[in-house]
Amino acid sequence: MSRSEGEAYLRTYMDLVSELPKRAAQWPKVPLVDEADGVPIPRVNISVKLTSLYPGFDPVAHDAALRRAKELLRPLLRKAMEGGVHIHIDMEHYAIKDLTLDLCEELFMEKEFRDYPHFGIVLQAYLKDGDRDAARTIEYAKRRGTPLWVRLVKGAYWDSETVWADQAHWPWPVWEQKWQSDACFERMTRALLENHRHVWTAFASHNIRSLTHAMAWRKVLSVPGSAFELQMLYGMGDPIKRAGVEMRQRCRIYTPYGPLLAGMAYFIRRLLENTANESFLRLATDTPESELLRNPEEIGRRTPPYQRPAIIRYEFEEPIMYSFENVPNTDFAQASLRQQMMAGLAQVRADLGSQIPLLIGGEGVTTGQWFETVNPARPKEIVARVARADSAAADRAVAAAVAAFKSWRQVPPEERARVLHRVAELMQQKRFELAALEALECGKPWREADADVSEAIDYCTYYGQEMVRVSENARRRDIPGETNQYYYAPRGVVAVISPWNFPLAIPAGQVAAAVVTGNTVVFKPASPAAAVGAKLVELFLAAGAPPGVVNYVAGPGNLVGEHLVKHPDVMTVAFTGSRQVGGHVNRLAAEVVTSRPSFKRVILELGGKNAIIVDADADLDEAIKGVVHGAFAYAGQKCSAASRVIVLEAAHDRFVSRLVETVRSMGLGPAEEPTTSIPPVIDRAAYDTIREYIQLGKREARCVLEVPVPAELHDSGGYYIGPVILDDVPPDAHVAQEEIFGPVLSIIRARTIDEAIAIFNGTEYALTGGIYSRSPGNIAKARAECECGNFYINRKITGSRVDLQPYGGLKMSGFGARVGGPDYLIQFCEPRTVTENTLRRGFAPSEEVVEELA
Amino acid sequence: MSRSEGEAYLRTYMDLVSELPKRAAQWPKVPLVDEADGVPIPRVNISVKLTSLYPGFDPVAHDAALRRAKELLRPLLRKAMEGGVHIHIDMEHYAIKDLTLDLCEELFMEKEFRDYPHFGIVLQAYLKDGDRDAARTIEYAKRRGTPLWVRLVKGAYWDSETVWADQAHWPWPVWEQKWQSDACFERMTRALLENHRHVWTAFASHNIRSLTHAMAWRKVLSVPGSAFELQMLYGMGDPIKRAGVEMRQRCRIYTPYGPLLAGMAYFIRRLLENTANESFLRLATDTPESELLRNPEEIGRRTPPYQRPAIIRYEFEEPIMYSFENVPNTDFAQASLRQQMMAGLAQVRADLGSQIPLLIGGEGVTTGQWFETVNPARPKEIVARVARADSAAADRAVAAAVAAFKSWRQVPPEERARVLHRVAELMQQKRFELAALEALECGKPWREADADVSEAIDYCTYYGQEMVRVSENARRRDIPGETNQYYYAPRGVVAVISPWNFPLAIPAGQVAAAVVTGNTVVFKPASPAAAVGAKLVELFLAAGAPPGVVNYVAGPGNLVGEHLVKHPDVMTVAFTGSRQVGGHVNRLAAEVVTSRPSFKRVILELGGKNAIIVDADADLDEAIKGVVHGAFAYAGQKCSAASRVIVLEAAHDRFVSRLVETVRSMGLGPAEEPTTSIPPVIDRAAYDTIREYIQLGKREARCVLEVPVPAELHDSGGYYIGPVILDDVPPDAHVAQEEIFGPVLSIIRARTIDEAIAIFNGTEYALTGGIYSRSPGNIAKARAECECGNFYINRKITGSRVDLQPYGGLKMSGFGARVGGPDYLIQFCEPRTVTENTLRRGFAPSEEVVEELA
Repeated sequence: MSRSEGEAYLRTYMDLVSELPKRAAQWPKVPLVDEADGVPIPRVNISVKLTSLYPGFDPVAHDAALRRAKELLRPLLRKAMEGGVHIHIDMEHYAIKDLTLDLCEELFMEKEFRDYPHFGIVLQAYLKDGDRDAARTIEYAKRRGTPLWVRLVKGAYWDSETVWADQAHWPWPVWEQKWQSDACFERMTRALLENHRHVWTAFASHNIRSLTHAMAWRKVLSVPGSAFELQMLYGMGDPIKRAGVEMRQRCRIYTPYGPLLAGMAYFIRRLLENTANESFLRLATDTPESELLRNPEEIGRRTPPYQRPAIIRYEFEEPIMYSFENVPNTDFAQASLRQQMMAGLAQVRADLGSQIPLLIGGEGVTTGQWFETVNPARPKEIVARVARADSAAADRAVAAAVAAFKSWRQVPPEERARVLHRVAELMQQKRFELAALEALECGKPWREADADVSEAIDYCTYYGQEMVRVSENARRRDIPGETNQYYYAPRGVVAVISPWNFPLAIPAGQVAAAVVTGNTVVFKPASPAAAVGAKLVELFLAAGAPPGVVNYVAGPGNLVGEHLVKHPDVMTVAFTGSRQVGGHVNRLAAEVVTSRPSFKRVILELGGKNAIIVDADADLDEAIKGVVHGAFAYAGQKCSAASRVIVLEAAHDRFVSRLVETVRSMGLGPAEEPTTSIPPVIDRAAYDTIREYIQLGKREARCVLEVPVPAELHDSGGYYIGPVILDDVPPDAHVAQEEIFGPVLSIIRARTIDEAIAIFNGTEYALTGGIYSRSPGNIAKARAECECGNFYINRKITGSRVDLQPYGGLKMSGFGARVGGPDYLIQFCEPRTVTENTLRRGFAPSEEVVEELA
Repeated sequence: MSRSEGEAYLRTYMDLVSELPKRAAQWPKVPLVDEADGVPIPRVNISVKLTSLYPGFDPVAHDAALRRAKELLRPLLRKAMEGGVHIHIDMEHYAIKDLTLDLCEELFMEKEFRDYPHFGIVLQAYLKDGDRDAARTIEYAKRRGTPLWVRLVKGAYWDSETVWADQAHWPWPVWEQKWQSDACFERMTRALLENHRHVWTAFASHNIRSLTHAMAWRKVLSVPGSAFELQMLYGMGDPIKRAGVEMRQRCRIYTPYGPLLAGMAYFIRRLLENTANESFLRLATDTPESELLRNPEEIGRRTPPYQRPAIIRYEFEEPIMYSFENVPNTDFAQASLRQQMMAGLAQVRADLGSQIPLLIGGEGVTTGQWFETVNPARPKEIVARVARADSAAADRAVAAAVAAFKSWRQVPPEERARVLHRVAELMQQKRFELAALEALECGKPWREADADVSEAIDYCTYYGQEMVRVSENARRRDIPGETNQYYYAPRGVVAVISPWNFPLAIPAGQVAAAVVTGNTVVFKPASPAAAVGAKLVELFLAAGAPPGVVNYVAGPGNLVGEHLVKHPDVMTVAFTGSRQVGGHVNRLAAEVVTSRPSFKRVILELGGKNAIIVDADADLDEAIKGVVHGAFAYAGQKCSAASRVIVLEAAHDRFVSRLVETVRSMGLGPAEEPTTSIPPVIDRAAYDTIREYIQLGKREARCVLEVPVPAELHDSGGYYIGPVILDDVPPDAHVAQEEIFGPVLSIIRARTIDEAIAIFNGTEYALTGGIYSRSPGNIAKARAECECGNFYINRKITGSRVDLQPYGGLKMSGFGARVGGPDYLIQFCEPRTVTENTLRRGFAPSEEVVEELA
């Protein structure tokens, strides 16, 4: 989790490498395992998990991650060479597989390590990449000259890999069927053994077929003992181990090292895996030998091809087939996609400083006044010069929207939905360019910016589908002699006033919802995100929204925004921003304009003072990961950000000390750098406010972490604020009550779960929140009693996804239906009932009715 | 439609009766039709439709209707006797069947008419009452001594009778199957012919089986020619007529008399009826004789029993079975139900003046201050003395509601729905008492008060069902490793502030919606309806709503109402009332209370300035009926009332002159009198305001009708205002722009449909509206362009029913979802999303997921 935890792990590895050989020298000698073909081999054989070494081993920052990992590993490898210790670099999740292979290749090719024959890597046969990974390894092992060990495994994360891939809508990296992994294992076995002069292979499996297959090929290919061993887990498959030994096969037993609890957890996970339905070990007890030894390819021939189950959603008690799926975020583990992001940044950079006019009635309009948007990491870098609207321009925009409404409201819902789907397609085509612009203009780091584009796409797709559903829902209640239709008509002009922190997603959602329901829009972006906002409107025009359906007026909120809210022709206001301005908008909109009176609907998405409860029995690895992401991602500049953690006494000290170390390790930097965990905040005003809150927090509570801003970042002029953690914060302190919108986290102690919930509810806000707990009772209590729109159990509290987690708050956090949910579109509509008497002079038109009933 | 039209019809009858005999005397004599058994019989035979004689022939006011109809008919009957003319009192719709039979019985038994043998009545064999009606007629004909003619028909309103009964949820008065009517005809035939000394029968049918059956029984029973004839319609079934004549049966042909167009309409209706699928005339052309002459009982034996089709509603494209049905209003044509209403009035009257405390936390509370509610028809009559709440009492009520919320929110939705269903049952049990109280306290006439009770019942039933649907809709979006639930939580305390004009239905709907969604309520009734309001709360308590879930505080709106709106613990305000107060409520609620900040939801149901467009080709009978009901029922004291009629030039003069005469005929009176069409307005303040508008209207436009208040009503002190019609009102006149809430109608001319729509939309309001037109193009245009929540085509614009016509307006008419519709409950709720990470240390709990998917 943290740099210090990584350092502790590394120290342990170093201790093992230096101390274990001394102990091992005293062990009795067992030739079958201590020698190969009569030659002694290392008695100490250590596997290293890279993720334990430091927290930044992340493929998004591929090169930096490699550099740092190599720095950390070199002393270990040197020490291993000194003591004649065997070192295996372990393989973990698919997301870091290529990074790990790249690392090993570069490291083991380094001059000082190139000649040592006791280094190894792990290859996983359950990956679809298995054959390719084996080939790649053989290839560089040949170039290396000295043999390299490969531990060949099936792989231990099949469940997680499939779930994560499903959740991300990425293809499965693993084979769908067990026999495919087995077959791949055998193909890799043969490839590796055929190259036994370059790669030496340890077969780590408990599957008799896999092992005997390897042993048979060993015999066929005359592989020497130095290049072949079996490996099995301590405590598992003991009869197989005995059989191996009886057959004079070298068989190495591996076991976890370290504190008892962590080791138990490891064993339990492996036990679960090995008792899964398709596991060999589970089959072994009551399956005939011929079946256990059957060629997996043969099993494949009699197995029906895998069919990924359709996604089933629940609605109206019945499971329904539902077509909406969230668009996948970019998998930055793939080098080609990282390159596209770099290209996007370069492209945006080439355009920096260009002029952006207002867009009214489909045409560019300038006002003679301009304002600039800048890169928060280098405020002297001007991103765009934007035409500054005044109230006259706002009036023009409203007039254009009023004019366009007359015809747009009559466009069929399906056609309006098609415009949204085209916008979504265009966004997908330009996703790197859009994300890059967000990085440069709004300081959003890669993954955050990428997710913002995905969310924008999802809104367009989802609301498009929703509109079709809503318009199909136009209810009929026909009775003899009378038809009754209930349907949703648009309301008129919608003012969309949006913030800079989700610069594309939030206005995209609101504009999409307004437009698809048949309304027309005047959109005012937050000034620091004016260039991203202009792109959104350009996309709508490019997608075929007629002129005037979406209009763009950038300018100061207290002038342009307020003017729009008060405008008599604006029927609906969708505002996202601060609680103060939101309250003001609500009051302004409630003032009926006498020249054209109508009640205005106001949709508010405001702030939060979101809390996570960490229960006494919480899984702290998970809780810390969730808190860190919720509190510090994008420097805490999200309405959904975790800004309070309420920790039960029993967990407090462990939690806080690990949390502090974890956050201390997070990297500050410009958003465009993939290494950056915490970017600068948006502008000088935000910087000053947050700094003031930090000073206030130090008076109100105990500051347990304040990460200093590195000198070079400070000198760049960027609005950097190092993350701050305040402990023992009184629940009613200003820093525990007010939204700071920066990388500042307040920790509050609670003695009981009831007290924790009372603290949770003790603010004006009620947006997101969550609990980490393993106690079903406490989870149920918190779920029922915690006041918020989005409640998360054992999960981070940011990053809600369209349709999966309809989003929004209550109390002072918001007003209106949930974003990305089934009730959202309706609030842009006015339901209408049309009743027609079909009785004519005493006769009911029965045939008409019959036809409609048919 | 009007008294003057009735007088014109009566004059025509009188002219016919006096003039036709002179003409008929000159016709050549045809013994077969002019004599019976050699004795001359009247050559002039006239049918009288009672509904043409005057507009008040309504069973709700049974005795008064009989009295008036007899007064009108006596001169006609005398004249008929003078000229030896045969008079048949025709039979029309089932609703007035008993009234008609009662009338005939009383009239023909009168001394001066008792001996005349040429009066007749009509009996309908398609009625389930047929046999009983025949028996009753035979019985009094015997007592009368002189034979009475009966024309036996099947009946010509089968379509309407079934549609009207379905719409009212009343049982069908007619036989479901054609053979049943035929069989009933034959039973009645035999009963009548067996009594041929007392009743003489004219068989009016074109069905050969029915006619030959009658002729066969005539032969068997030796019925003389004086007591038997056939009757057929002019222009229809001519071969049958010829066959009758050839068989020497007397066969009378009847034909409409009067203007050509009306006559054509009559012929066309009869033609439609006689070409219906099951009509004999349609069958006759290609069906073998044996089939045509088959005994209907035999057809019955081979016909599967009738099954009334289940009601099918449309939702989500698919037809669904839907269980909600509107509760039937009372059928005041039934004497027993009229008696129950009278008993209800007597019961309420016995309780007049009793004391009503506030109801807070389930207990009666007094404040030392009282106010009185009075009968608007006799303001000296005190209906109730009600405890007057002050702000302290309002605070107590809110505190009780806050306290009750804690547990009520956790009561399962089904249980909450059950409370509503019990309230509905109690209302149904007490419906006459409740309606009677409305009549006495709020001046609601019988049918209006009865419909208000029905609407209240419907809200309870419907919202109960809706809550179950909404809670079942709690959506799931489960993905591997994550469950996502979206459901609707209550918001907290709801202030229900409601008006006096729908004294039970409006608060019942809002209280029911608030309570069933898990909220608790403080209900402040309009002061003039405080006793009805108290009854509502008593019913909720009696139905099992826990103490504090519904609290009752009566008192002045500017004190108690405003205090509730501003109260920091009130989360939702449901206000129904005037546009001015509604705007004020909206502004007040937008002021965030700093002590407990939260955005308040405001649900407003305000006024209307509703218009009906009367197109150039409108069916004026229908249009006038709809306009009169919309504008003057309950003295125009409905938000949905028609207060503007926009008439296309071509229809203007005819429409206005007929409308004026119709309205002139409407009866003013106390609501408790069933004869009353227009009751007094609610109170002195309303009276004064409306009188001022009438004076203003006379200056702004041309007053074409102002009905004077009869002296005895004026002397009663009741707030009577005779209906007023203003013509040629400029669209922007005050009386065409402002809600008057009284019996004042503005007529505005339009040259084109576009102009009519522009006028329609040219007010601040947009609640209900409608068009009477026969032009599909104009209907479509108006439907698309007229701005209002509820639009009605060729139907009255008041009386929306729960579920069938979700109700509410836009612009300044309202704010919020439609009452009695599928989106209503949601606004009392706060959607919540709960996300749970179910991945544990890399393992997804697949069995859990599978179980839920199963």
